[in-house]
This record gives sequence, C-alpha cells and structure tokens, in this order.
Amino acid sequence: MRDKDFDIKNPKKKFKKTERVPPKGYDNANDFFEDMYMDEDMIWMGQNTNHLQDDTISDAMIEAIKEKNYCKYPAPEGFSELKQLILDDFGFKDLEVLLTAGATESLYLCMQALLEPEDNVVLSDPGYFIIGDFANRFANEVRYVPIYHEENHYKLTPKLLRENMDENTRMVILIDPLNPLGSAYTEDELKEFAEIAKENDLYLLHDVTYKDFAREHYNMEDYAPGQTLTIFSFSKIFGMAGLRIGGVLSSKPIIDAIRNAVVNDLGVNIITQYGAIAGLKTKPQWIGRIRETCFENQRLIHEMIEPIEGVFLPVYPSDANMMVIDLSGAGINPKEMSNYLVGKKLFTREGEYTSEEFGDRYLRISFSIPTEEIKVFCEEFPKAVEALRTK
Amino acid sequence: MRDKDFDIKNPKKKFKKTERVPPKGYDNANDFFEDMYMDEDMIWMGQNTNHLQDDTISDAMIEAIKEKNYCKYPAPEGFSELKQLILDDFGFKDLEVLLTAGATESLYLCMQALLEPEDNVVLSDPGYFIIGDFANRFANEVRYVPIYHEENHYKLTPKLLRENMDENTRMVILIDPLNPLGSAYTEDELKEFAEIAKENDLYLLHDVTYKDFAREHYNMEDYAPGQTLTIFSFSKIFGMAGLRIGGVLSSKPIIDAIRNAVVNDLGVNIITQYGAIAGLKTKPQWIGRIRETCFENQRLIHEMIEPIEGVFLPVYPSDANMMVIDLSGAGINPKEMSNYLVGKKLFTREGEYTSEEFGDRYLRISFSIPTEEIKVFCEEFPKAVEALRTK
Repeated sequence: MRDKDFDIKNPKKKFKKTERVPPKGYDNANDFFEDMYMDEDMIWMGQNTNHLQDDTISDAMIEAIKEKNYCKYPAPEGFSELKQLILDDFGFKDLEVLLTAGATESLYLCMQALLEPEDNVVLSDPGYFIIGDFANRFANEVRYVPIYHEENHYKLTPKLLRENMDENTRMVILIDPLNPLGSAYTEDELKEFAEIAKENDLYLLHDVTYKDFAREHYNMEDYAPGQTLTIFSFSKIFGMAGLRIGGVLSSKPIIDAIRNAVVNDLGVNIITQYGAIAGLKTKPQWIGRIRETCFENQRLIHEMIEPIEGVFLPVYPSDANMMVIDLSGAGINPKEMSNYLVGKKLFTREGEYTSEEFGDRYLRISFSIPTEEIKVFCEEFPKAVEALRTK
Repeated sequence: MRDKDFDIKNPKKKFKKTERVPPKGYDNANDFFEDMYMDEDMIWMGQNTNHLQDDTISDAMIEAIKEKNYCKYPAPEGFSELKQLILDDFGFKDLEVLLTAGATESLYLCMQALLEPEDNVVLSDPGYFIIGDFANRFANEVRYVPIYHEENHYKLTPKLLRENMDENTRMVILIDPLNPLGSAYTEDELKEFAEIAKENDLYLLHDVTYKDFAREHYNMEDYAPGQTLTIFSFSKIFGMAGLRIGGVLSSKPIIDAIRNAVVNDLGVNIITQYGAIAGLKTKPQWIGRIRETCFENQRLIHEMIEPIEGVFLPVYPSDANMMVIDLSGAGINPKEMSNYLVGKKLFTREGEYTSEEFGDRYLRISFSIPTEEIKVFCEEFPKAVEALRTK
C-alpha cells in the first residue's frame, strides 16, 4: 500500500507540442475556435477550408442519413467503392488505401508504425507542424529546415535535404503544395528526392492535401514506389473539413505495417464516406469552377497587395488555396494583424501556427471563398496595414 | 549508401493483435463486413448496434448538413454545449470531457498517455479485446482474468482482481455492463474496486458504453475520483455506431495528460456532434421505449432458449443490449452456428471475438432490434441447434 496521493506519472509522455498563446481575450484556443465557428458573419480565411462547394455532396449525405444505415458499423477499412474511386483519382494501380478520420490520423499512424526511436525526420519550416509533433512522439528528432528564402523558392529543395540529413534520417516530409506558402514541387525535384530516398533508404511522406488547387501536380509514388506514403484529404477541395475524412496510399507491405498500428478499428464515419463517394464521382462537374474562382481570388489579392509598401507575397501565384502575406517590411506583428482583422469579421491566421522561425513575419490567408468576400478582404486589408504599420 | 532493398523494419511495432479467421468464403474480414452492411435483408444482431431509434437524431443531422457549416473545422475539443450535456447525463460536476472519433479512440489515448512500459493491466476474459490490444502497445502485459464462471457471476470480482494483480498493476478495465455477457457491477462491488485502487495507486477504466440498457448503473467516478476514467459512447443507446463519436470523462489532471497525447487535433465530425446534441436533449422522450423493447426482446429469447437441451444463457436478464448463448452442452461450434445463421439472414457473432479462452463455447447476440426481427431469430435458432447439434 502506497502512502501518498494518486500520481499521474508519465514524464516520457510529455510529448513536445507546438504551443501557442490563445488569441486576445481567450483563455484557450478551443473557446476562440468555437466563437469563430458560431459567428455566421465571419469570413473564413483562417483554416484553408473551402466554401465553394455546391449541394452535390451535402445532398448525397442527406440521402444516406435518411437510409439510417449509420446505426450499423462501417466495414472497418471503408467502402470498396470509395477506395477504388480514390485510387482512380490518383491514377494509381496496385496500391492500397487506408481511410482514416481525417488525414491527421493517417499522419499519426505513419509515424507510429514506421519510425524507430533512433530515427530522425526532415520537415520544412514553415510547414504543417502537427506532422512534426507526431514524428517527435516516436522518433529521436525532427529537423526543421528553414526554407523561407527566395533562393530556394520557399520550399525544401533536394540540395537542402542533402545538407540536413544524416545516416539516421528515415523520413522526409514533402507537403505539396506547401501549407502555408502554396509553393509546389516540380517533376524534376520529385525525381531528385526519389533518387536521394533510394540511395539512403528513406520514406518519402508526400502530403498532397492541396493538390487539386495546383496548376500542375506530380505523384511522388511514381518516382519512389515502395518508399512513398501519399497522404490525401477530403477536407479541402471537397469542402469537407468538419467531417474528418482522409487517408494514406502506399504499397501493400507499408499499408500492412500501418494497419497493424490502427487506432479506429471500427472504421470511418459512414455518412462522410457517402459524401466522399459523391464528391469523387461528381468532381469533373465542379473542379473547374472552384479552381477558377481560387485563381481569380488570388489575382485580386495580388493586385491589392502590389502597391502596399513593406508588404509582399513571397509565392505568387500560389498552387494551394492559401498564401502568405509577408508583413515584416511594414513592421507589423502578424498576431496583431489577425486580431485586428477578426474585429472586421475576417478570420485569418498569424504565422506562428506554421513557423517557429519565421512566424513573426507573415499572415496566412486562404481564399477558397466567394469572390465577394475576397473583395471585403481587399478593402479592409490596406486599412489594417496603415492602422498597424510601425515602419 | 545502403546496398539493399528498401526495408520496412519495425520489429518492436509488431503489435499484438487479436487475430481471427475470416468467415467462410471470405479472404478478409473487411469484405465480410461490407457484405453484411450491404445486405438490406440481414437482421443485425452481430455488433451490439441499436436499430430502434426514431427520426429525432437523423433530422437534426440533416438540418446541420443543410447549414453547410461542415466546410469549417470544428473547435478541436468539441462543442461546449455537447460537453455540458454529457456531464449532465452522468450527473458529473468538475470533470472534464474529451470527445473522440468513437470511444475506441479514447481507449487508445488513455493507454498511450497513462501507461508505462513496466506496467501491467487487468482485463476480463471474456471482454472487449481492442482495449487489451491497445494496452499491449504501451504496457508490459495485459492479464486476462478468466471470468466465465457462475461462482463469480460471469464478471470480474474484487476477489479475482486481488488474486490477479501485483505491484506493477497500473490499470484495471471494468466494462460495465460487460460485453459480451451483459453482467453489471453492483454499487458494493464498485466501492470495493475503489478501495483496491486507492490502496494500490491504480487507474480504474470504467467503460460504460452499455450503461443505458442496464436495470441499475453506478458511476465508478463517484467512488474513486481522480483515478477513474469513464469511457462513453454514442454508438449504442443513441444508435450512432457508424458515425463514430464517444469520449472520456475524468478529472482535469488526467484529461490534461490525455490531451497531450491527442491524435485527431482537428476535432470530431461536426454533423455527428449535432446528432449527439439532439440525442441527449431528447433522451427522456425515447429512452423508456427502447429499454422496454430490449427487455421484451430478451424475454422472448429466454423463453425460446429454456427448453433447448444443452443450450443456456449464462446471464439473464442481461443489463446490456446483448447476451451470450452457451452452446457447449449441445456440442456446437459457435463459428458454425454464426455461419449457419448468416445463411438465414441473421448476423450474430461467435465467441472468439470476445474470448480467447471461452470463445468456443458461446454465440453473442444483440437484441436492440425490432421485436418482429427477434421473432424470426426465435423461430430459426432452435432449428439451427438441431441441425448442428453433435451432443
């Protein structure tokens, strides 16, 4: 019998997590997000979500709900029809699909299943940091390569990878197009990454969440088969962020290893799967319209930014549905900018969410919203700069 | 440069998983489940799901889909309204709620966050084995205590716990009511478990997925506050299995530790959250009807089983929406029985899904389905026994 209070002892479980200060006026981030969500007038440029879908996907989900089959469990690995549609969307043959509750869960499972305690992982800064947080739970180290520089076109290059890897490097994270910058990898770059991976026995994790917004997109899997993990999501182009569905595509031996580490062994939300099926089947009907709106929206933003002194777009055009606005030349703190804009009913995201090293330089905005809302942003943003400018 | 093929090396990641042979005629379990799901005529007694809900929850979800807010991300920890309704449902104050994609994910997070490599965990056999599989990933050992005996009323007792624990025991799993047997813990038993937990610095994981079907139910949290993890689910009484929502309730220090290990940091499906809110708000209107149907259904099954020689119900009445039918006295292999019944459009579950040691003795059936379907089962089952009997 132990003579002491109950003790939650788990020193090794103190996972490194990228912590951020909650926005002004909030005790925690959850309350802030709930307020954003509940505010019907808020213009949604803060989460790379897509607000341009029509009723096709929602109608399919409503029909599925009426059938009431959701009282049963889904097949644990998802509907065969959906998995085949996903493979067809990529043009992949002989690959396996694992569906998960959002791409996030796939990212986690890859790290849990494939990394060893001595491994290190290469990720870019800026980048999508939850990937690094997950890698940190299972590997020895995550190496954040600073890429916020014009000379490397604001992305990880094969040269930067070679400089930052060593014999314990086991996985390279390629977010393509890159959140938050919208930079994308060329076919030649992917081929060179594939060579490095083959030479050094690396996994290439190709997170293609934003691929359908890109002018051109190439599959890493085509150049490094058997070593590539392709992470996909229905959150963005399909406008299904709040429904949590995504997954991972890879060769059978790799997916088998990941399956072995599965968390949600009772499968992915059925209604969402029906929505995803409808989305993939109807994609040719709506993809052109959504892409055009996004390119038009970023053209308007570019035009508005151009004349503002001390402010610039590092990557334009962006190949994603988001871009970065660099505020450093105007001496503006991005957090103050996002706070100010929330007051104008514009929800954007300060840089610290996607960069430790460069987060104080930029604001991230997503633009897959109706063009009339972009026009509101284009009217308010120059006024915000003048109100907050210190240089 | 390594001169060999790419190697997926992860010996330590070969998680122990309870493996089962796929049903006759299937290469893998996923295809079997998909066939079951797709067969509109199949009577659903194999997954403890509830097919008795009316349109209240589905209507709320349809309304939520029409609003199209699912293109945004949910607040990562879920709607405050939902969390408060859950606390109220349990009558808990000063506890925290973590929502997850099904209770399964909560079970996983508890194991990941709270267990150390030297710990052992106590679980009953029969029991819900995914819990043990998760515990095995993070702890040294899972001790399955055989409980399929009349003298301990087909459940883990405080005496059995004392006999099977040692100084490294860190967590005790109490599934209450117990899947698959439907046995439930008395208030006195919970008090005694609480004493053992306090004396020995144990976590008590109280999985109450089936609580609303029970004649009486008590909260472990009331007797071992600060050491109890209460796992809840919307899959069963709310009839939302295919929508994947559940969670864990505990004291703030414990939930903070679990939060730190979170996987789906972008939250739980929004539409499902709206369904859960509607379910909790309207529960007083439908809970009586569903409970009564379940008690009537199991009465009919009991009446049908009574005269069959060599077949008996270890626990009757069951406090869950499922029960076990022991077939051993008739010399019937439960797997053959479930295969036979599938041919009669009755989906049930052989014992090996919930017991390593006793799985060859029983069939598990759930009865939260319309009474006319139960009558079909009651007609077919005695014929099945006579067709398969070897004793």
